[in-house]
Formats: sequence, structure tokens, C-alpha cells
Amino acid sequence: MNACIIAVGSEMLTPFRVDTNSLFVTEHLNTIGVDVRMKAVVGDDVAELTALVRGALEWADVIVMTGGLGPTEDDITRDAVARVLGVSMSENEAVVSRIRERFAKRGITMPEINRRQGMVPDGATLVENPNGTAPGLWIEHGRTAMVLLPGPPREMKPMFEAIVRDRLASRSGGEGLFRRVIKITGRTESDVDATVQPIYGPWQSQDVPISTTILAVLGQIELHLTARAADRVAAGRALDAAVGELQGALGEAIYSVDGLGLEAVVGQALRDRGLTIATAESCTGGLLSSRLTDIPGSSAYMQQGVVCYSNESKTSWLGIPAALIEEYGAVSEPVAKAMAAGIRAKTSADVGVGITGIAGPGGGTPEKPVGTVAIAVSAAGDERVRTFQFFGGRELVKFQSSQAALNMLRLLLGYPRS
Amino acid sequence: MNACIIAVGSEMLTPFRVDTNSLFVTEHLNTIGVDVRMKAVVGDDVAELTALVRGALEWADVIVMTGGLGPTEDDITRDAVARVLGVSMSENEAVVSRIRERFAKRGITMPEINRRQGMVPDGATLVENPNGTAPGLWIEHGRTAMVLLPGPPREMKPMFEAIVRDRLASRSGGEGLFRRVIKITGRTESDVDATVQPIYGPWQSQDVPISTTILAVLGQIELHLTARAADRVAAGRALDAAVGELQGALGEAIYSVDGLGLEAVVGQALRDRGLTIATAESCTGGLLSSRLTDIPGSSAYMQQGVVCYSNESKTSWLGIPAALIEEYGAVSEPVAKAMAAGIRAKTSADVGVGITGIAGPGGGTPEKPVGTVAIAVSAAGDERVRTFQFFGGRELVKFQSSQAALNMLRLLLGYPRS
Repeated sequence: MNACIIAVGSEMLTPFRVDTNSLFVTEHLNTIGVDVRMKAVVGDDVAELTALVRGALEWADVIVMTGGLGPTEDDITRDAVARVLGVSMSENEAVVSRIRERFAKRGITMPEINRRQGMVPDGATLVENPNGTAPGLWIEHGRTAMVLLPGPPREMKPMFEAIVRDRLASRSGGEGLFRRVIKITGRTESDVDATVQPIYGPWQSQDVPISTTILAVLGQIELHLTARAADRVAAGRALDAAVGELQGALGEAIYSVDGLGLEAVVGQALRDRGLTIATAESCTGGLLSSRLTDIPGSSAYMQQGVVCYSNESKTSWLGIPAALIEEYGAVSEPVAKAMAAGIRAKTSADVGVGITGIAGPGGGTPEKPVGTVAIAVSAAGDERVRTFQFFGGRELVKFQSSQAALNMLRLLLGYPRS
Repeated sequence: MNACIIAVGSEMLTPFRVDTNSLFVTEHLNTIGVDVRMKAVVGDDVAELTALVRGALEWADVIVMTGGLGPTEDDITRDAVARVLGVSMSENEAVVSRIRERFAKRGITMPEINRRQGMVPDGATLVENPNGTAPGLWIEHGRTAMVLLPGPPREMKPMFEAIVRDRLASRSGGEGLFRRVIKITGRTESDVDATVQPIYGPWQSQDVPISTTILAVLGQIELHLTARAADRVAAGRALDAAVGELQGALGEAIYSVDGLGLEAVVGQALRDRGLTIATAESCTGGLLSSRLTDIPGSSAYMQQGVVCYSNESKTSWLGIPAALIEEYGAVSEPVAKAMAAGIRAKTSADVGVGITGIAGPGGGTPEKPVGTVAIAVSAAGDERVRTFQFFGGRELVKFQSSQAALNMLRLLLGYPRS
């Protein structure tokens, strides 16, 4: 089966925005063996959208449209589809009263304009939207299934997952694509590629062929394995074997084989071992503690964080001797160690982290240029410290620092267990 | 003039890639007044590409195609365009010998396959490619100019700049598009739309027409104003007047008229007034301090942050009486106020912030459901506190909380000045 994905919205035709919904939609269509043959972005213009949909109806088995279901005049998806299909629209009372209730819950009277969101083309089925006002629409026309979804990702994603599961999976019938994401940190892309290329080469010609894509994203490398198989079980067996080979070659550089982020892996490790953690951050400004607390249930292990930007606050809050800072400089391994030990002592957490560095753009020197970051992790009987040289601007340095700190924590805690 | 941008290449139809060439092309087309009305990505399939180009020829003044000019069978752009136009192709000797020379310089004999890159549809003009083997092609067909460029950005970009300068600018008639982004927080999309629609309606028919797009992103609303004018000065005047009208209608709900983010506006306010700040966060876990320190030079005002997840740490680090927490609960306005006052007292910062809430997914109660967040800001002689009810999962609640706290700080500091 072939699919066309259309994103509607003039803002995605500016130089500042890309459509990312289509990546999510593609991934989920691929899983059930549906091939995306074309994707397009059109503005809030009925005539152009109409022409595009008419063209796609000639060849596509599935047309997924995101956006343009809001309450304003700019929201034209419903109208364009009704026009292409030559059907009329009518107001659905149930939808309008659901929208009215959502507003009422927040103590607001529904603006009259929102009634537009209750207009439904004849023959369409409603798709429930648990996270917003506009329902989605499912319309069958000849061989083609049309899916209309709201644009905001948090509304669109659960709705599309439900559609794939409940309506599309049974129609597709073909071989599915099944993926596994291996996450690696602390190695370069070319280094990882050189190590794994001899391994993944032969996978292409297996009974269940697996293709491999290597992807360098900020602070980590991802290996995306894609198996083509008739069912999930056969794909799972082949992928498990492939992952095992990669683990043999890359060892502890792999931090996750199931897509989990580094903060989730560290959280899992702390939780499993019943340990608490406290953080002392300078250049990351709270990003490390924020990432640690992105994980649901992190209050079980996250005890305390401090952001000590000034030298004075490092002394008064963490008890770091002014003389130590004087001797080695605020950005140094001794100070990072004293921060990790200091926050542990002050909070009686089991694990402490200290980060001190130069995020830039100012503050660099020839000996310690922008991007120099010292990180220490400390637990009973085990203390580690490293100095990194990161590249890029302020936000990149902050992110890479938090990533390196999480990785040092993971290795300190011995995760994932081999 | 209206443009269509088409990227050719199956790799851009996977879940891992987005086409970014189109952003560069859009930006350069906009400056000479060409409007991008549609963009699309198609795979390496002659039939689908042919259908798409045929559709675009019906309405587009400019069709820019990137990719598919390489030497392999997968490179089908030339063939598809020749087919649509019903012209034949012939090998251009000059192009082939240029390619042969490029290979020779690297000591390699040109593979025969590369002769495909010398195939030119009848009627096409060559566009020089200083950074690669494949030349670009310029083809005029009726009212439409078609531009075929290679996909790699370092080849495509200088070629497209030359085309805009030498060929397209004079055709477009010179009116450019100029943009302004207005950012608003603390109001709903439909509320903002209802307020500003009567204002921006008439702008369309001005001497310098301005079109308006309203965009709801997480925790804020953006109004994108686009003026069409012969030059930057005329556009600037019209946009200034438009922004003034919006400020009159929306007042302090507008936090920026030049695209600046909320953390940058707060930083500007602190810096201008020579004030320092300290943060006490519970449910945001350091996200507020991290956002404040995303701004270069924030060490001038960011003094200290603490993340107090447990009640005990609120008491021991911020001096909040256990009895207060007991009486009102950790998530309450009195505790938020005590956190803001406590961090100010402990650090002698000029401004303090306290955030306490339930980020979820656990911890909610009927009286205080997930998403309940109390935020206090405190400065000499001025203290404000509010309770919010945010929606969505953990990360959304964290972000909206940090956004609301930054907005309360901005209003406390009286920014932007009216």
C-alpha cells in the first residue's frame, strides 16, 4: 500500500519551520508495511489543497492530512476535502457539546467560532481526540482511506496510533517494517561505523533482512535497525540476534537497546539500586537536574539540586574552600570533585555530581577555551572526574555537558548490566 | 509570483530525515517577493514525480527542484521533466568533458555511468555548479521557470543564489516579503484571535499589504506578520504601525515584538535594571534556572538556583517551616511564597522565584490534580503569587510552569516597557 502525507498550514512554508509530524506518521505507516511515496506541505488555501488531494486520490491508498482543523478562517482542511469529494458538511451536535464542555471545565464559555470544529463532511467517521478540541476524521473514498488529524503533535500522535492499530493495520496485509534503536555515547560516528560495518553488512541477505542506518545526533550516535518480516515475532528474533552482535562489538558504549534516553537509563539504575542523587551545577545551569526530573517517579531518587553560578555561592552553599578555587580555577577537576563531594555531604544523597565549565560565548582563555567542562561523579568508595572539550555554542555545550554527566553516572552505576 | 519547491529522493521519505534545502530556497525566494505556496518530497519514481510536476505547472510561476541529478538509475529528475514537457534529451559534450576533467584531477577515470549527468533536455540552459559534477538546468515553459539543482546543500546553495540574482529577481517585479514575529503568553489562541481579527483584517488592502498568521505553540501564541513591499524601509514603516496597533489591543500580553524568547526578555529586564535573581524550584526540577542560563551573559544576573524536591529539603535549604507545609500542603501559594522569599533571603538576590506543583503522572488528588502549580515571584516591596492548572504530561507541565514563571517575572519587572 502507498501513502501520501499532507501537512496543512502556511506557517510551515516559511523559512523557519519544518513539518516533523510526517516523520512520526511515516514511522508508524512503515511498521505495518505501508510505503510513503510522497509528502507535501501546503498553505491555508482551499484551491491548492484541493488540487493536491485530487492528485493524490489517483494513486494513494492512504492520505494522511495533519493540521487545518482549528476554529479559525485559516483552518481549511475540512472544506477542501468536502469540496474534492463533492459532499456537503453539517454541524455535529455531539462534537460541539464536547468542545463546549472542555471550555467549561477551564471556566471559559466556548467562543462561537469553535463551532467550526464541529463541522463534519457527510460520510466521515469521527476519530476521538483525547488531548484537544478538534476531533479527527476518517473518510473512505474508493480504494483510498483519508485520515484528517489536528496539527499539534500531542493531539495528533495518540490519534494516529489508534488509527494504525484499529483501522489501517488490518487493511495493509503486507510485510511490516520493524525497528530497533541502539543508542551509543562517548564514541565518534566514524569510529562506530568502522567497528560495526563488517557486522551489519551480511544482515541484508538474511532470511529476515535487516538494514542499518547510522545517525549522529547531538551527544550520541544512534543505530537504526530495520527488519522486514511477515510478523513481529520473526522480526523480533532477527533483531535480538543483531543487537547481541552489536553489544559484543561495542560493549559499554551502548547505553540503550530499546530507545530509552540516557536520563531514563540513569533513573532506572538509581531506582534498581535504591540510591538517591544530588547535583551541583555551574555551567549547565540546572539542565542536568531538569533532565533527571523529566522522568516520571524521579522524586524517588532525586533529592536535591543546586545551581552555583558564582564562586561565592560554591563556597557558601557547597563548602568549597575559596583557596581551592583560587589555586586551580573554578573550572578544574579539583573543584568539580569538591562540588560532587560537597553536595553529597550537604544532602546525604548516595550519589553526587559536580559540573563546572565554560559554556560561552564569553569567559574562554587560551588554556581553558569555551567548551572546557570538568565533571565529577561521587558515590561511596568510588569517585570519577574527567575534563571534556565540547564544541558549538552555549546551548550545545550545556547539552553535551549534561549528556557526559549522565553517561559518567551510568558507568559509575554499572548500567546497563551485561 | 508563486513557487513550488520539490525535493527528489527516497531517503527523505524515511522517518529519520527532513528536507532542509527548501528552507534556504524559501528564504531567498521570499526576499524577491516570490511566495512559496507548496512544497513536496517525492521518491525516486518517474511516474509520481511526473504527476507532481504536471500539477505544479498549472499554477506555479517558479518550480524549484532539488536532487535526482546524480549519475545512477535512481536519479530521475531530468527524465521526469523531459517527459512532462514532451521534449527529448541529448548528451552535452561540453558537460561530459567537464565532468571527465573533474575526475581526472583526482586521478580517476570517469565511470561511464557519469555520462548520464551530461544529458540535457532540449531547450534547457545550463547552470554552472562550482562545487560538484552535475550542472543545474534552467527551463522556461509557458509562464513557468523550472530550476533543477543538485541535492547536496553545498552545491545547491551557491547555484540557487546565482539564479535568484541573475535570472529570477528581474522577473519577480521586485516586491519583497518582510516579516515580524509578535509573541504573546497568558492568553488562549481563540481569545487572541477574537481580539486581533478586526485589527488585521483591513491590513490586507493597505498600500503595503500585511498578511497575518496566528500560531499556537506550547505556552505561547505567535502572530507572524508578513508585509509585501518594494523595499525594506516601506515594509518597516507598515510593520511598525501594525505592531503598534496590536500592542494597543493586547497590551502587556505581548512580551516580544522582535522574535526574542521569554528568557531573553527577562534577562534583558534584569540586566537593564541591574538586578540579580535566584530560583527555588520543585516540580520544574531546574528547568527554569536552565532556561534563564541559556542566555549568553546570564552570569551577570543569575546568582543561584536550588531544586528542592523533598519537603525536608524545602525546610533545611530554604528555611520553610515544616508547620507551613503541613498546614497548606507543599503545593500551595503560601509555600510558593515562602520559597521565593526564602531563596532571596538565603542568597541576597534582588528577585526570588518559587515554583511548587504536581508534574505527574503520579501525585495528583481531587483537590490538587496533576498540573496544579503554584508560582511566586518576589522583589523588594512587590510579591505576587498565582496558582495555575496546566494540561498534558510531565514535560508539558514543566515547560508551561517555567513559561508562566518567566512571564510573572517579566510583568513584575515591567517589561517590555510601554
